Amino acid sequence: MKFDNPTQVMQYAINLAQKGLGYVEPNPAVGSVIVDDGLNLLGAGYHEKYGEAHAEINALRQAGDAARGATLYVTLEPCCHQGKTGPCAEAVIQAGISRVVIAQEDPAEWVAGKGIAQLKQAGIEVEVGLLGEEARQLNAPFIKQVTTKQPYLLAKWAMTWDGKLAARTGSSQWISGPESRSIVHQLRGCMDGVLVGAGTVAADDPLLTARPAGPRTATRIVIDSRASLSLDSQLVQTITQAPVLLCTSESAPAEKLKQLRDAGVDIWQGKLTEEGRLDWNEVLLELGRREMTNVLVEGGGAIFASLHEVSAIDEVHLFLAPKLVGGRDAITPLEGEGLPAIPQQADLRDIQIEITGDDIYLRGRLQRP
Amino acid sequence: MKFDNPTQVMQYAINLAQKGLGYVEPNPAVGSVIVDDGLNLLGAGYHEKYGEAHAEINALRQAGDAARGATLYVTLEPCCHQGKTGPCAEAVIQAGISRVVIAQEDPAEWVAGKGIAQLKQAGIEVEVGLLGEEARQLNAPFIKQVTTKQPYLLAKWAMTWDGKLAARTGSSQWISGPESRSIVHQLRGCMDGVLVGAGTVAADDPLLTARPAGPRTATRIVIDSRASLSLDSQLVQTITQAPVLLCTSESAPAEKLKQLRDAGVDIWQGKLTEEGRLDWNEVLLELGRREMTNVLVEGGGAIFASLHEVSAIDEVHLFLAPKLVGGRDAITPLEGEGLPAIPQQADLRDIQIEITGDDIYLRGRLQRP
Repeated sequence: MKFDNPTQVMQYAINLAQKGLGYVEPNPAVGSVIVDDGLNLLGAGYHEKYGEAHAEINALRQAGDAARGATLYVTLEPCCHQGKTGPCAEAVIQAGISRVVIAQEDPAEWVAGKGIAQLKQAGIEVEVGLLGEEARQLNAPFIKQVTTKQPYLLAKWAMTWDGKLAARTGSSQWISGPESRSIVHQLRGCMDGVLVGAGTVAADDPLLTARPAGPRTATRIVIDSRASLSLDSQLVQTITQAPVLLCTSESAPAEKLKQLRDAGVDIWQGKLTEEGRLDWNEVLLELGRREMTNVLVEGGGAIFASLHEVSAIDEVHLFLAPKLVGGRDAITPLEGEGLPAIPQQADLRDIQIEITGDDIYLRGRLQRP
Repeated sequence: MKFDNPTQVMQYAINLAQKGLGYVEPNPAVGSVIVDDGLNLLGAGYHEKYGEAHAEINALRQAGDAARGATLYVTLEPCCHQGKTGPCAEAVIQAGISRVVIAQEDPAEWVAGKGIAQLKQAGIEVEVGLLGEEARQLNAPFIKQVTTKQPYLLAKWAMTWDGKLAARTGSSQWISGPESRSIVHQLRGCMDGVLVGAGTVAADDPLLTARPAGPRTATRIVIDSRASLSLDSQLVQTITQAPVLLCTSESAPAEKLKQLRDAGVDIWQGKLTEEGRLDWNEVLLELGRREMTNVLVEGGGAIFASLHEVSAIDEVHLFLAPKLVGGRDAITPLEGEGLPAIPQQADLRDIQIEITGDDIYLRGRLQRP
């Protein structure tokens, strides 16, 4: 196999990296390709699973002795620390690689340019930035995790053509069709957490598991300052299938907390804000401490609104169903007070459109101010 | 030019017919193609403009003497009455056509099979139904007009990804981008009427004209039971550019009505229902009496909801803008009481998706119960 140009080599490395998503977190997904001066493929690999070999190591193994004097492409700066596996920068140097092309510097404080410095010190030519934006998009959750210590939030909602999450009665089964719901299950299977408000649990009594299971088992997180979660809820009843984390306030009734804890529910207690709500910053830092990289937020409208108010949502996954339900009091995706005027710029970018059965599945990233 | 099969001939006739949309109403759009036994094209034409020649006549003119013994394809049953132009069935017979293939029978009571009967009586072989569904879709507005005496309603709304027509303050400028708004102007230019509620006029003071102008000049219709329309509104101030029809109640203040009438506003007065609203059935029959075929409804959420409650909306044109505005009290596309549960079946079918700048333009037809 021979590549036409360096961009093509790096794109191949990015494509390889993507295969690790859902398996490698909280590590970043990384791909690596080794080529000779004629851009002939000598070796390629990616970080396949958390705790196993990094991308560069897999690529070097495949290239063997041919790596000597060759160029290594990698989507993220090689690490220089002794983690679960040996430092990659060291291995690259040992293999006799003469040039390294890196898409993106590693923003993690324990790397942050030190891997590059080590390579240069060994006399290796280093180039940074090829397809850098693509690499940043690929690892946006990892980057958010290591730079803010908070997980990357994907807000998912299913909405009618007239903008409703549910009918006026609170009933929301089913806005989206089976094809859309199957995508939601795939999403859940790649998440560290699936988060909902107590109102959604009370209204829908959801399971929030991935069916069928994916590469990860998401913790089911309930934002519930009064610890109203019923012991009879499906969440508590299926505690052996996936963990449940109740985020509640310090003033939640101790007796109820004991019952929930006895039933296997993990409890986290935080302070209430002046508005009587949990502080999102505290909640999200706690999820970060638990090494969560990706969290899917599944509603309801008050949760989405308060998360959006603090600019915590990173992506929106919208399933638009060709139905009309009506109702001035029906719940919309963002409740709360809302803005006084329509934003003049788009809030969402990199929009992707997919047809899922009768529905339209839209994805977009939130523009950061 | 030679066709491969009869379906291709009829599709060509439908494509021709479409060119008349916006120009022929309240007539139907019709296309006609004449071919010999080898499906070679002998003549083709369409109804180009209201008051001018019908499709068959244009096709026959082009075919000339070659029409003798040939087959004529037409998207709608030929007329048999002396309207603005002579009866087409008669002309087809005179031209010596030996076989007629018709996509759809004309549902208008003054034709309704009589054209077909006349052709058969003259010994012409007649076939009905080829691409019938496509022909019915093409002339759905005409069919609704002649069968219900009410215009075909296209509800158009621009909505954020979180389901809002406006911010909580009522401000809606601008949810959709310039590319989407330009499509709205094109739509208006093909309509007989553009209808809004008094609330929308008070909030936005819209012009509701097509800019640039299209083939038709739509009457600007305001549903305004209290005759609250301001004499200073842009609608009244631009009365010379396009007519304004105020649909109000019998109890609207006479003095205000006189002022509006003096300013050139056309007034229609109807009875109020028990809920204190105008009766849509009466309003729409009035618009039908005025020979309106297509009316674009531009809001707001209460108007859409009450029209949907009486199943009067035929199409939804949704511009989805990648913005989030939030607000429990922000207006959504369908306000009103709303349904108690999510419909189990799709309400909209034949969905078309188009990218318009940053927005997504979705069209769908309402399923009829």
